[in-house]
Amino acid sequence: MTVRIDTLGNGMRIVTEAMPGFESASVGLWINAGGRHERVEQNGIAHFLEHMAFKGTARRSALQIAEEIEDVGGYINAYTGREMTAYYARVLAADVPLALDVIADITLEPAFDLSEIEVERGVILQEIGQALDTPDDIIFDWLQEAAFPGQPIGRTILGAPELVRSFGRGDLSTFVAEHYGPEHLVLAAAGAVDHEQIVKLADKAFGHLTPRPSRIQDAAQFQGGEVRENKPLEQVHFAMALEGPNYRDPDIYAAQIYASAMGGGMSSRLFQEVREKRGLCYSIFAQAGAYGDTGLMTIYAGTSADDITGLSELVIDELRRAPDDLTDAELNRARNQMKAGLLMGLEGPSSRAERLARMVHIWGRAPSLAETVGKIDAVTLSDLRAFAQRLASEAPAAMALYGPAEGAPALMGLKERLAA
Amino acid sequence: MTVRIDTLGNGMRIVTEAMPGFESASVGLWINAGGRHERVEQNGIAHFLEHMAFKGTARRSALQIAEEIEDVGGYINAYTGREMTAYYARVLAADVPLALDVIADITLEPAFDLSEIEVERGVILQEIGQALDTPDDIIFDWLQEAAFPGQPIGRTILGAPELVRSFGRGDLSTFVAEHYGPEHLVLAAAGAVDHEQIVKLADKAFGHLTPRPSRIQDAAQFQGGEVRENKPLEQVHFAMALEGPNYRDPDIYAAQIYASAMGGGMSSRLFQEVREKRGLCYSIFAQAGAYGDTGLMTIYAGTSADDITGLSELVIDELRRAPDDLTDAELNRARNQMKAGLLMGLEGPSSRAERLARMVHIWGRAPSLAETVGKIDAVTLSDLRAFAQRLASEAPAAMALYGPAEGAPALMGLKERLAA
Repeated sequence: MTVRIDTLGNGMRIVTEAMPGFESASVGLWINAGGRHERVEQNGIAHFLEHMAFKGTARRSALQIAEEIEDVGGYINAYTGREMTAYYARVLAADVPLALDVIADITLEPAFDLSEIEVERGVILQEIGQALDTPDDIIFDWLQEAAFPGQPIGRTILGAPELVRSFGRGDLSTFVAEHYGPEHLVLAAAGAVDHEQIVKLADKAFGHLTPRPSRIQDAAQFQGGEVRENKPLEQVHFAMALEGPNYRDPDIYAAQIYASAMGGGMSSRLFQEVREKRGLCYSIFAQAGAYGDTGLMTIYAGTSADDITGLSELVIDELRRAPDDLTDAELNRARNQMKAGLLMGLEGPSSRAERLARMVHIWGRAPSLAETVGKIDAVTLSDLRAFAQRLASEAPAAMALYGPAEGAPALMGLKERLAA
Repeated sequence: MTVRIDTLGNGMRIVTEAMPGFESASVGLWINAGGRHERVEQNGIAHFLEHMAFKGTARRSALQIAEEIEDVGGYINAYTGREMTAYYARVLAADVPLALDVIADITLEPAFDLSEIEVERGVILQEIGQALDTPDDIIFDWLQEAAFPGQPIGRTILGAPELVRSFGRGDLSTFVAEHYGPEHLVLAAAGAVDHEQIVKLADKAFGHLTPRPSRIQDAAQFQGGEVRENKPLEQVHFAMALEGPNYRDPDIYAAQIYASAMGGGMSSRLFQEVREKRGLCYSIFAQAGAYGDTGLMTIYAGTSADDITGLSELVIDELRRAPDDLTDAELNRARNQMKAGLLMGLEGPSSRAERLARMVHIWGRAPSLAETVGKIDAVTLSDLRAFAQRLASEAPAAMALYGPAEGAPALMGLKERLAA
């Protein structure tokens, strides 16, 4: 392992990992600022800002940003999450300095040209339309709203169309000023990279930034509830969540093993019971999502209007019996899937840079694979069953439905079935 | 480069590439059999068969297939295309023999248990529903129908629901007997692999197969036309296609460069004109797809009902002006994107195994990256403009629309605009 971490004088962290044999690298900036850092009237601004980063700076037009990276065969993109915004590029080794310069330029010096803001507003409104036409994606936004009603972490990333229509240059500048401080930035790079070179370039690009006053962040509180959007789609898209551990909670490993055993692969309980034995869906899965102070154990499936009641009851029955009969074989399989998945996922520079950035944001360091594997291996069957028991007995639950959902059961009934 | 190719006595080919530094491997079977090999009454059977492969064999139940691979942390999956069906797994190095054994078992010895056929029928009908709820996916099926009406290559992979409801064991066995002959199989592996071991295992698993009588395949004929599915979605999903080169046509490199320059990245013409300057969409792209005897130059965008006319006319205007004003800068950028994309894409075992399999199917060998790069570099600006000219002056064109498309222009009008 050749992970190296440095901290600039202003608190910005830099983490790299050289991967022998690679001719390309992934380099990116992960900023601890996202949807949950927005005030209610700002909802959608973190994402709008991410779009505007690509629309020109003091030194580059929007077209130049695209051309400089694509001229050398590179790729640049970004995403906005609830706690994190990321700007990242994949380039050949020789072009790492260019990629870093472009990323610094677009994040630190966006021009916020007024006509570009107008054009991008249209793009984002189209993006919202596209999201609504992607039921198995948008449903997770609604599930989040149902889990955290009225809270910053529960709001959508894209923002409501009426707010998107209202944002101006001042809204963008305010969000940058409040949240893009050096102590919230982690620059991560993996693949064909030279740590010293990257630190030097980062210091030149980001070293002048001064720390921002500390921010107050609302603590998330899983409350639960139901969001139901009736629409004449082919399937009822069903998502439900129970409160899971946050990413620093020691329970996170049990939660991930649970998600894998319940809905992580073809051998998982939900896949076997709902799809393989009864043919009630094509897609079904469980996943353990985590934030700084909360988490979501989420289950998704898409099914026909005729089958939604049966499917949702089957899901509940599986949640209910898991604490009593999860087996050692399932624990071992889930462990092996997580360990191999980690190893195989990290054979590429992009996923490796992303993991480094997230680890440094969460822990201030990058635990080795061996350390993570040790924690996965330490989870016992009684830990796993105890976790399953706590999960099933949690009072709050959230559910989202999208499609011909008129006949779908209410959350209350499902909760009663779970508690029965 | 450590690509090695062997051919068994029965004609089956085996191609491997050892990648130093990797601890995992991708291994898969690529079969030259897919939707276009179905007779009209068989439409959907290739895909149904791919599903049934996972539903049990003489030696393993469906659950055992899943468990054996997932017990060791591996991953197994499959897909059905118009010319190819693939079964592939990603596993740690020590488990390559297991993966190969499972793949051989499920493709050669599927049990076709009658009750499993009934369950899987339900799963596939759910999959069809899910596809219809994924407009930016299903629209390419309809574009294919519009381009090749009434032809095997124009039919959907999933099949019509009424046919899916009708298939039985005999239909599955017939398709295997007709198309899964050893001369149509390529076993490919990349990553932590040992060529000799794989050849030996492949000979044991597949060496007993005897070649099938040669098949007659309908020649595809791009005819063109329009498919319009009105539905109250948020966006009108628009896809159009012109006839492109097949994958052995020397023009394929010019076609790929054209697709990249027109709609391959943020700097491409369509992205700049439609999204960046006017904000009319979130997603827009062009791609050059190729088959053995034909190809499709495809453009996709999603937009609002108000903007579909403007957007489709802009697309046509870009197709019309490209022959006259594509530049050397665009040619060079597209070349660099293709070359770097090729290199970066092939840094992972899964994409590398897939490329090897496809190359061996098409060429009987695996051209080196240098050879492919040479062909990309050989395309001149006049080649590119001449290709753009032929494309724009092709008579047939196909279009598919999904969503609130009542006000969208007819294909005829767009063709007239292109010819003007």
